[in-house]
Amino acid sequence: MTKRNAFYAQSGGVTAVINASAAGVIETARKHRDRIGRVYAGRNGIIGALTEDLIDTSREPARAIAALRYTPAGAFGSCRYKLKGLAENRAQYERLIEVFRAHDIGYFFYNGGNDSADTCLKVAQFAETMGYPLTAVHVPKTVDNDLPITDNCPGFGSVAKYVATSMREAAFDVASMAKTSTKVFVLEVMGRHAGWITAAVGMADDAGTPIPLVLLFPEIPFDEAAFLAAVDAKVKAAGYCCVGVSEGLLNADGKLMAEAGTRDAFGHAQLGGVGPLIATLVKDRLGCKYHWAVADYLQRAARHLASKTDVEQSYAVGRAAVEMALKGRNAVMPAITRVSDKPYKWKITEAPLAKVANVEKMLPRDFITKDGYGITAKARAYLGPLMKGEDPPPFRDGLPQYVRLKNVAVAKKLATQFKV
Amino acid sequence: MTKRNAFYAQSGGVTAVINASAAGVIETARKHRDRIGRVYAGRNGIIGALTEDLIDTSREPARAIAALRYTPAGAFGSCRYKLKGLAENRAQYERLIEVFRAHDIGYFFYNGGNDSADTCLKVAQFAETMGYPLTAVHVPKTVDNDLPITDNCPGFGSVAKYVATSMREAAFDVASMAKTSTKVFVLEVMGRHAGWITAAVGMADDAGTPIPLVLLFPEIPFDEAAFLAAVDAKVKAAGYCCVGVSEGLLNADGKLMAEAGTRDAFGHAQLGGVGPLIATLVKDRLGCKYHWAVADYLQRAARHLASKTDVEQSYAVGRAAVEMALKGRNAVMPAITRVSDKPYKWKITEAPLAKVANVEKMLPRDFITKDGYGITAKARAYLGPLMKGEDPPPFRDGLPQYVRLKNVAVAKKLATQFKV
Repeated sequence: MTKRNAFYAQSGGVTAVINASAAGVIETARKHRDRIGRVYAGRNGIIGALTEDLIDTSREPARAIAALRYTPAGAFGSCRYKLKGLAENRAQYERLIEVFRAHDIGYFFYNGGNDSADTCLKVAQFAETMGYPLTAVHVPKTVDNDLPITDNCPGFGSVAKYVATSMREAAFDVASMAKTSTKVFVLEVMGRHAGWITAAVGMADDAGTPIPLVLLFPEIPFDEAAFLAAVDAKVKAAGYCCVGVSEGLLNADGKLMAEAGTRDAFGHAQLGGVGPLIATLVKDRLGCKYHWAVADYLQRAARHLASKTDVEQSYAVGRAAVEMALKGRNAVMPAITRVSDKPYKWKITEAPLAKVANVEKMLPRDFITKDGYGITAKARAYLGPLMKGEDPPPFRDGLPQYVRLKNVAVAKKLATQFKV
Repeated sequence: MTKRNAFYAQSGGVTAVINASAAGVIETARKHRDRIGRVYAGRNGIIGALTEDLIDTSREPARAIAALRYTPAGAFGSCRYKLKGLAENRAQYERLIEVFRAHDIGYFFYNGGNDSADTCLKVAQFAETMGYPLTAVHVPKTVDNDLPITDNCPGFGSVAKYVATSMREAAFDVASMAKTSTKVFVLEVMGRHAGWITAAVGMADDAGTPIPLVLLFPEIPFDEAAFLAAVDAKVKAAGYCCVGVSEGLLNADGKLMAEAGTRDAFGHAQLGGVGPLIATLVKDRLGCKYHWAVADYLQRAARHLASKTDVEQSYAVGRAAVEMALKGRNAVMPAITRVSDKPYKWKITEAPLAKVANVEKMLPRDFITKDGYGITAKARAYLGPLMKGEDPPPFRDGLPQYVRLKNVAVAKKLATQFKV
């Protein structure tokens, strides 16, 4: 069999565990040196391929690649850069093939969410049209958890664990303070289109540790009166209330609450997020003292609190991607298939990219309680295993020790430039 | 020796480790049953004493008290309620003594910051005036780290570890995204008067893991032009910049930036904090894409990431408070004295409350770099040991398992009510 090089790139918003997938790809490729020469990574994602800015991962020692397993974010750089459709910008696809050809790249591993699944499929199709031999495999990743077919998305379980833990801890704080001070605490979380992360906040509250919680999902248009009544009831019953709100909460007109008219000192629209907006509303209408937090990047970068399940699955999809490619499987994605809930068992299966690209898996309505402010037993059965297990990074002098790679550039072979 | 009961109360903003001090007090008292009968806790702090709402901690099994060591926030409830001066409200002090007398309380342990140190001292003095035999010991606690005499305050080390870890993790995220997206990340942290927590953010950046960081201390009035130049220089040199800003940042007029004119959709002053304000400014003046986070309660409740040093010291001051009381030391506070930096060694010493009450220990100017945006080697030598070591709570099903006490009320003995 011929030996060819591989290209790996990270795409879109990074996660606490996307580098575990990178480790899975690179370590598995290194075990098949007869088939895969070098693994080149795109510096800043697909932009690195377009500009022929490739990183030679073979220059990194084994211990650095192993350290990727516990290092958050994208070690090679990611990008928010969506390739246009073939009809709109054929030149981009031609350039990719030009770069791949110059560096004898026969394997394309693209680590991302919906958009990158679509790009990966298009690249596979275009290479075929051009008669360029390429095996393209998408490696799933997104904290939004909205890829279809796969039971869950690598990256999500760790965010879920972080937001549930954080809300539980904050709830203990608020409960302590509620008598004379803060009665309502609002935590804003990510997930603009689908309420998976908001649902995970609901896991803070369970039979062993009940917490008066109100969740505001992006799927349920905001109803001010009903929301305030729900919060008021919790404050009256428990003395305090915790609110988990999605950054993507919509008003009755379908507009983002966060953008609905907030002005800052400079006159800009949208200074704060929806979290402070909801907190102020509670103060204004119910007269409760409040605190609010916006976790933002902290939630998706928190490798110190990653879910062990998530780390293992992230590594596994990276490894499986290489194994699938070596079997000649093209335009596919390793998917996580749940075998059972209790005990939680999962396996890697193969999903055709044509069925993955551009399909968003929304939070099922039956994961949300009838009143729209909580999660159901079904949601708990789904979410629980994804958050399970701890896998802390090494600490030194009180701080987690994460790796930074050398990221040595591959010598350019093309005389042509490409402007992105 | 006579056997008398003890009263313990938690005061002010809670921390990830104040319950470790409670465990230190209660477990040590239980070892001296010949001298200390029961430990009664105030439900919601000193309010519990004033209203005769006492919790009988002897009803809690040993394993529940031991679990306090790893449970964040105030297990008995805290309060923001400052006793007035004796001249202004003698009735409050008389009531305290009335309740103490009714329940044969001979030991008063008050766990808090500056205000409660002052209260503890006043109670000790008043009891003496009244001829009521009482030994009052203050147990230090505050994330603000601003108590004098003690080298550091229990609660601070864990917040320091949390904010430094969070900023380091977020920095890895921003570095990944900076090519096409977020270039500036802003994290708002607590510490309204003193920049101890802001300084701790600076620990995210070290020789092993350099991070382009700009800190905004409450001690340094905000200078827009200089700040923007500092951020711009970092972005140009490193491709991105992380900003740690104190909630207490002041403008040149000495006004809180967070309150300097922000208006929300409802027309209220102060919707967001200073974090989003600074982020918007960066976007507006430098044109950089930004993200911001406000950690709020998450930082002081994050027991999952507590500093082991902090947990040990918090327990130790609780234990020492009881030991001092048993030696008849009145109106004192166990203080942490640093014996050496490397290796870090500390011991508990005794501080007279008269020298503690109402004195705020500010961040020394020589902890801040000359330009006002970073920390010095001196700050690092001070902060490093306080963040050191991990002491995670037990996890089950992916979430930390914290204890909730039964908090059984002590039968009231007084017919009189007291309105707080």
